[in-house]
Amino acid sequence: MAVNTVASTTDTTSATSADAPAGSVSLGPAAALSCRECGERSPLGPDFACGVCFGPLEVAYELPTGDAEGLRRRIEAGPASIWRYAPLLPVPEDVAAKPNTNPGFTKLVRADNLARELGVTGELHVKDDSGNPTHSFKDRVVAIAVEAARAFGFTTLSCSSTGNLAGAVGAAAARAGLRSCVFIPHDLEQGKVVMAAVYGGELVGIEGTYDDVNRFCSELIGDPAGEGWGFVNVNLRPYYAEGSKTLAYEICEQLGWRLPDQLVIPIASGSQLTKIDKGLRELIALGLVEDRPYKIFGAQAAGCSPVSQAFKGGHDVVRPVRPDTIAKSLAIGNPADGPYVLDIARRTGGAVEDVTDEQVVDAIKLLARTEGIFAETAGGVTVGVTRKLIESGRLDPALTTVVLNTGDGLKTLDAVAPSSGPTAVIRPTLDAFRDAGLG
Amino acid sequence: MAVNTVASTTDTTSATSADAPAGSVSLGPAAALSCRECGERSPLGPDFACGVCFGPLEVAYELPTGDAEGLRRRIEAGPASIWRYAPLLPVPEDVAAKPNTNPGFTKLVRADNLARELGVTGELHVKDDSGNPTHSFKDRVVAIAVEAARAFGFTTLSCSSTGNLAGAVGAAAARAGLRSCVFIPHDLEQGKVVMAAVYGGELVGIEGTYDDVNRFCSELIGDPAGEGWGFVNVNLRPYYAEGSKTLAYEICEQLGWRLPDQLVIPIASGSQLTKIDKGLRELIALGLVEDRPYKIFGAQAAGCSPVSQAFKGGHDVVRPVRPDTIAKSLAIGNPADGPYVLDIARRTGGAVEDVTDEQVVDAIKLLARTEGIFAETAGGVTVGVTRKLIESGRLDPALTTVVLNTGDGLKTLDAVAPSSGPTAVIRPTLDAFRDAGLG
Repeated sequence: MAVNTVASTTDTTSATSADAPAGSVSLGPAAALSCRECGERSPLGPDFACGVCFGPLEVAYELPTGDAEGLRRRIEAGPASIWRYAPLLPVPEDVAAKPNTNPGFTKLVRADNLARELGVTGELHVKDDSGNPTHSFKDRVVAIAVEAARAFGFTTLSCSSTGNLAGAVGAAAARAGLRSCVFIPHDLEQGKVVMAAVYGGELVGIEGTYDDVNRFCSELIGDPAGEGWGFVNVNLRPYYAEGSKTLAYEICEQLGWRLPDQLVIPIASGSQLTKIDKGLRELIALGLVEDRPYKIFGAQAAGCSPVSQAFKGGHDVVRPVRPDTIAKSLAIGNPADGPYVLDIARRTGGAVEDVTDEQVVDAIKLLARTEGIFAETAGGVTVGVTRKLIESGRLDPALTTVVLNTGDGLKTLDAVAPSSGPTAVIRPTLDAFRDAGLG
Repeated sequence: MAVNTVASTTDTTSATSADAPAGSVSLGPAAALSCRECGERSPLGPDFACGVCFGPLEVAYELPTGDAEGLRRRIEAGPASIWRYAPLLPVPEDVAAKPNTNPGFTKLVRADNLARELGVTGELHVKDDSGNPTHSFKDRVVAIAVEAARAFGFTTLSCSSTGNLAGAVGAAAARAGLRSCVFIPHDLEQGKVVMAAVYGGELVGIEGTYDDVNRFCSELIGDPAGEGWGFVNVNLRPYYAEGSKTLAYEICEQLGWRLPDQLVIPIASGSQLTKIDKGLRELIALGLVEDRPYKIFGAQAAGCSPVSQAFKGGHDVVRPVRPDTIAKSLAIGNPADGPYVLDIARRTGGAVEDVTDEQVVDAIKLLARTEGIFAETAGGVTVGVTRKLIESGRLDPALTTVVLNTGDGLKTLDAVAPSSGPTAVIRPTLDAFRDAGLG
C-alpha cells in the first residue's frame, strides 16, 4: 500500500484555494494529471487541457500494489458505496466519513428471463444504476467531483446539463454544504426542471440550445464571476470522469472478482466507456482479477450515432452530427472521447452499434417485462444494441455478458407513454370484467 | 434455530393449489395465521379474516431463539436486501436464490444538515426507501407477497392501487415470471399509469374511485374469474404486511444493532407502523438489541388525518374521512389498522400528528436542500410532522431519531412543480449573467 498511508487533511474548511501551490492537495492515490495525447504530467489542479498540446488531462495514480489479497479484503470490508474503492480513486482516504450522497454498489441483476428472450445461453447481467441516489450513474462522477471541489477550495458546484447531471449536482452540493449553480436550456421538460430546482441551488435557464449553455459555461470559467466555481464537467472533468471506473470495479466484484467476457456500454461523450476500460485494466494490473480477454461494445441511438458511423466506416475520426433521438441523455453530437472509444472497441474485439428510437422503446419494454427493470432511454439503447449484436453474431450468446442501464425510466416517461396505457377500461362489475375478455 | 432447519421445497412448479391441505406449505419460520382480535390460530393459507370473529389475521412465528450472536452473524453475512432477514420472515429459506426484485437494505442517511435546521442535537437519520427497485417501500411488502403467492400456487399477482403498489406488483410479477393484473382508477396521472403498464402485465382502469376499485377486487376474489389470483393487499395481506418489519430490522442493524429512541412513520392504512413496532419487539425478544424504551410517532396529512384526530381527541375509534390532500399515497380515509396505531403511539409514549399540504411541500424542499434527498409527499409528511413535534416539545431533540421517507419525489412532481423552477432565465452572455445579479 503506497500513497494511501498519507491521510488526507483537506476538507471544506481547511481547503486550499484554486491557485494553491502544487503538491498541497492530497487526493488519495492520485499522483498527477497526465495528458492523454502527449503524456505530459502536471500537478493535481482544476485543469482539463494539457499546457503543452491542449490534449485532455486525466488522473494518473500511484496505486497500492503487491498485496492483492489484502486490498481485496479491504474493499470487501468497506461501505456499500463507491467509497469501498477509495484506494483506487482520486479522493481522500476518509471520504466515506464526509457528507456526500454515497452512490454506487448498485445491483448487478442476473437477467435469466431476458437471456431466454435474446437467445443467450451464457450468463446475462444488467448493471442497474437506476438505484443511485438521484437514479442515474451521474451520482458516481459527481461524488468524485465534489471531493476535488473541496480539495481545490471551490465553494460553488456547477455544470451545464440537460437533466440527469443537474439533479446529481444539486443533490450532491446540498448534502456537501456547497452552493450550487446549474445551467440548463430554458425549455427543458418540467420533470427535469423540478428535479434540478428542488435541491435549492441556483438554477439558471439559458435562452438557447445545450451547445449555447456549454459555450456560456466555458466563458464563465475564464471570468472573475466564475472564480471559486467548480464546473464538474469542465474544470473538474479529469476527476469527475474517474467516477465511471467504479462501474468496472463493482461489476467484477459482484461477479466474484471475475471479468465479464463482454460489456455493452452506452456512448454519450464516450467518457464512461473509456473509464470502464481503464478500471478493468487497473483490476488486472493489481491482480484483483485474472488477466484474460474481454470485449467492449459501445451503444448509440441511430439519431445520434457519430461513433457508430465512424466504427462502421473504419474511420479514426468522429464526424459531428446534429442529434435527433428520444435518447436525450446520449444526445451528444460531438463526443469528446469518440476516438478513444473507437480504439477500445477495436483493441478488445468489440464493436459500436446503434438502434432506432422504435427499437429503443421496444427494448425498454422488453427489459421491463422480463426483469422488472424500468430503464431510461439509454438503457433501451444498450438492451436494443445487445439484441442486434446477438442477431448479427457479433456478441457471443454463450459467454458472460453485462449490459448497463445508466438511468431511470421515470425520467424519460415520454418515450414509452404513448404505447403504455391500460389494457382495458371497464365499469366496476364482474360482467364488465368478463365482457372485456379478462375473466 | 428451530423451524428454519426444514428446507422449503415449494416453488412455482411444485406449488400447492389454493385449497391445499393444511400443513403442506413451508414459509420458513411462519407457523400459522393468528387473529389479531381473538387470537384464534389457523393454518397458513390465502386467508385474511378470522373464521371465528372476522378479525384481521397476521402471521405467527416460531422464531429462532437461544443464539442471538449466531443469528446476528448469519444476518450480517446475508445479501444486501431484505432476504438477509429471511430467518424472521414468512419466506422459504432459499428465497434469495429465486427471481425477485431483491428490495431493501436501503440507505439510513445521517442527516446532520437537517438536524441543524430543526434544532436536533442528538442523532437524526432518514431511512430513505426511495432507493428500492421501483422507488417505494412497496417493493418490500410485494416481495413477501410473491413468495406467498408461489407457496399457495397462485399464477396471477393482483392488487388495487393508486400508484406505488401498481408499479411494485408489475415489476415483481415480471421478474418472478407470474402473470399480473393490476386495477387502478381510470383517471390516474399519466406517470403512474405508465409505470404500472410498462412491465407488461394487464392493467385495468376502473370507471370509478379507488373505493370502487377496492370493492370490485373483493368481488373478484369470491368469483371463479379470480381463481388462482393472489391479491397482494387482500387475500395475501397477512404475508404482504410482514414486509414492513424489515424496515425495523434494517434501521436497528444500520444503527449498530441499536434501537432508535424515536421513530416518525407515515400512516396510510397504518399497517407499516404496526409492523415496524412488531419488528422492533421481535429484535428485543431475540436478544439482537438491548431492551429499552422507544417512542413511535405517526404522521398524517391534515387533509386525511383520521388517526391523528382520534389520537388528539383521546378516542379509541377512528372515524373515516374523505381524503383531500396532495399526499395521495397516504390518502386512505378509513385506515384498517388505525386503532392498532393508536394503541402503539399511546403504549410507547409517542403521538400522532398531522401537517397541512403547504407544510408538506415546505418539508419536501427542506429535506432536498439539506440532505439531497428528493422525497415523495409521504416523506414531506414525516419530515413536516417531525418539525412540528420538535417545536411543540413532544419529540426530544437530544435523542436518536429516525424519520422515514417511503417514496420518491419523481412520482409526485406535481406537489413541488408550481414552486420549483429556474431562479433566472437569461441570454447566454456574461453581461446578462451579471445583470441578473448572479455574478
